[in-house]
Amino acid sequence: MSEDKRKPLRLGVAGLGTVGVGVVNIVEQSAEMLSARAGRDIVITAVSARDQNRDRGIDLSTCRWHDDAVGLAADDNVDLVVELMGGSDGPAYALAKACLAEGKPFVTANKALIATHGRELAELAEASETALRFEAAVAGGIPIVKALMEGLTANKINELYGILNGTCNYILTRMEREKLAFDHVLAEAQEIGYAEADPTFDIDGIDTAHKTAILAAIAFGIAPDLDNLPTEGIRNIAPVDIDYARELGYRIKLLGVARQTDKGVEVRVHPAMVPLSSSLAGVMDATNAVLITGDQVGQTSYEGAGAGQGPTASSVIADVVDIARGICYPPLGVPVSKLKSLPYLGSDSHIGTYYIRLRVTDVPGVMAEITKSLANEAVSIDSMLQRGHADEGGAYIVLTTHETTEQSAIAALSHFNALDCVLESPAMLRIETA
Amino acid sequence: MSEDKRKPLRLGVAGLGTVGVGVVNIVEQSAEMLSARAGRDIVITAVSARDQNRDRGIDLSTCRWHDDAVGLAADDNVDLVVELMGGSDGPAYALAKACLAEGKPFVTANKALIATHGRELAELAEASETALRFEAAVAGGIPIVKALMEGLTANKINELYGILNGTCNYILTRMEREKLAFDHVLAEAQEIGYAEADPTFDIDGIDTAHKTAILAAIAFGIAPDLDNLPTEGIRNIAPVDIDYARELGYRIKLLGVARQTDKGVEVRVHPAMVPLSSSLAGVMDATNAVLITGDQVGQTSYEGAGAGQGPTASSVIADVVDIARGICYPPLGVPVSKLKSLPYLGSDSHIGTYYIRLRVTDVPGVMAEITKSLANEAVSIDSMLQRGHADEGGAYIVLTTHETTEQSAIAALSHFNALDCVLESPAMLRIETA
Repeated sequence: MSEDKRKPLRLGVAGLGTVGVGVVNIVEQSAEMLSARAGRDIVITAVSARDQNRDRGIDLSTCRWHDDAVGLAADDNVDLVVELMGGSDGPAYALAKACLAEGKPFVTANKALIATHGRELAELAEASETALRFEAAVAGGIPIVKALMEGLTANKINELYGILNGTCNYILTRMEREKLAFDHVLAEAQEIGYAEADPTFDIDGIDTAHKTAILAAIAFGIAPDLDNLPTEGIRNIAPVDIDYARELGYRIKLLGVARQTDKGVEVRVHPAMVPLSSSLAGVMDATNAVLITGDQVGQTSYEGAGAGQGPTASSVIADVVDIARGICYPPLGVPVSKLKSLPYLGSDSHIGTYYIRLRVTDVPGVMAEITKSLANEAVSIDSMLQRGHADEGGAYIVLTTHETTEQSAIAALSHFNALDCVLESPAMLRIETA
Repeated sequence: MSEDKRKPLRLGVAGLGTVGVGVVNIVEQSAEMLSARAGRDIVITAVSARDQNRDRGIDLSTCRWHDDAVGLAADDNVDLVVELMGGSDGPAYALAKACLAEGKPFVTANKALIATHGRELAELAEASETALRFEAAVAGGIPIVKALMEGLTANKINELYGILNGTCNYILTRMEREKLAFDHVLAEAQEIGYAEADPTFDIDGIDTAHKTAILAAIAFGIAPDLDNLPTEGIRNIAPVDIDYARELGYRIKLLGVARQTDKGVEVRVHPAMVPLSSSLAGVMDATNAVLITGDQVGQTSYEGAGAGQGPTASSVIADVVDIARGICYPPLGVPVSKLKSLPYLGSDSHIGTYYIRLRVTDVPGVMAEITKSLANEAVSIDSMLQRGHADEGGAYIVLTTHETTEQSAIAALSHFNALDCVLESPAMLRIETA
């Protein structure tokens, strides 16, 4: 072991997109620095990608080429595989299983893979006493997996909030700054490469859900679980809600939320209003941020670039250096056999405050009907604004509630829907005061 | 080794003040959680403190008592020593050397010890292949040493800013919020236990210097070096400067700054004006924060409680769990033999912008004399305010400069001092735009 640890650590890299090229560049250009920090040389001996002939601006002449990424698992010249292909299944999953089954350390930036198969892969890694690491899967360059799994390991984690998708945060930032509609900003973001051609994963909150599932798993000692993760994206955020948010002292952010109480855990992804004075509200453009509250440490926060070549490669290589240093512990922080199965608290029982926007006919008596619907569900009003002249006709009524169960808030919404004076489905947003 | 790693890890704790008691509490109350995370039980088998008879509200009946902390090093029932006594020399230093010499892992919260003897202790630890860890020495509960040493290990660090002393930040916050003088706030802080009876270490920047020396060492791969760390505290910050800062769009913070350029490194501690819109300006009360800029990751930031029982114990135990997991690498991130000796850039050659406040006689021609002194040193003015009626008589002239060398700024100050119209030593503050 001691001798092994001084030999060069030979990497096989699966996937040579932006991040893969970033990893190759750092390994080559910072070889001396990495060797000093890792205690041994780190070299790349094999790669796999779709097109061998594409010019990526990197020298791969000394690397063995694998058309099939899974071949990296059996390559005797590869000590550790870095997976940057993405996708929860297919070759990434096959490669992970093959590597871990035969005890070859596996580093990945693939949130879908870990969120979907984290438990099984952790089991495989533990059985072969192999490292499985995924720092780059969450919040790009911010070392948040390490902070949670190691730095805060003395804490019972009570609460965690993340702004984890740069595309969504960028869209929300531009909608607010430039008073533009969602579709408009999305189209522009796609043009300049800030959003994918198929933006579903980002804007519908799926990417944030993957990352939140991973953080919640580590925070609470549970398996990643996408089935118990109610997820809502930012498609329905209207400019008018962004304006009202500001008027009421809030800003809209797409949040991953994970909370642990005596009764169980809540894990969810949705847009929410956060106070303008909160640190989450200050996170703009494509930046990511995570707030973590532990029983000992109190609240700590982490902020940085959530994506991009340098930041993501930075986290991939941090994992590689840890493994080069001989670090290996259960991938989810505790052995799979010690994962808890905590009850998931449905969002119905969630107690919080809510923002509701109604478009109503602009006639006397409307306000009375609205307040009656709220009173019927024992939802009490914290603040209320009425404005005439919605663009589409009628007037807006905007209100925030005092604390109530989500069930009551939703029941009030269905009352509203049944009223003649309410012209369209009401908008509702949770208020989070992290 | 594999068998060893499953045996309980037995701690000896030196120092049973607030943090020591916190460590004992967490180890006892979170035993099951820590065991699952560490892969083995963690127990406390020995302690040392000044007074064996003091009631600390913890049960020490199963622990061996050592009157002399250094005895912990030779105690066969102790696998790892946690040092929480403080002080750069004396028993803490003796204990560290004794432990590391005989290969007993050593965890400390002692910034003075690491800043002063880091290089020597790292050498001892490496020679015996023993872990030496000090997460709690910097920024309390924020896992910043780990972030820098592990999470960002793929980066060449260009720049680092820290608000690292909660007492100073608390004093500056109250001075601003309540428009109180330094002495007044300090006295109150001492009364409620936020500042020590002898506050020198905090308010003169020495504590911040210790922490900055440690962060700079890890960031740049150099030895901690207090001799090349110009240090200035907050004793001379006047309420009037806090007011002017705000008027000019800044807030005054005590900063630890470390910067690496092609020419060498700058490491320094001083109060500075930071833009109100910056994240550092938002760090209030006793909170700590660190901004780190790496060549790959860009800027990342970290915020949380910088002191206190829970936060500090949280970091101490994170180190203990790492060691329980079998993690051991060179204490300064690279072997001592690979530490660089980079040239220190004197503050004279520092190029920056400056705030200068002068109290002058309120007569015609003064402004001309002032601007002439600046022009003589080729210091150009960015903004300038003149206000009549300083409380002590005369008028204030307040100005900010464009970029200039510190040498020129200081030369301009000495011109001012020689002018008859200047009634007292000018105040100068660096402006940092992190």
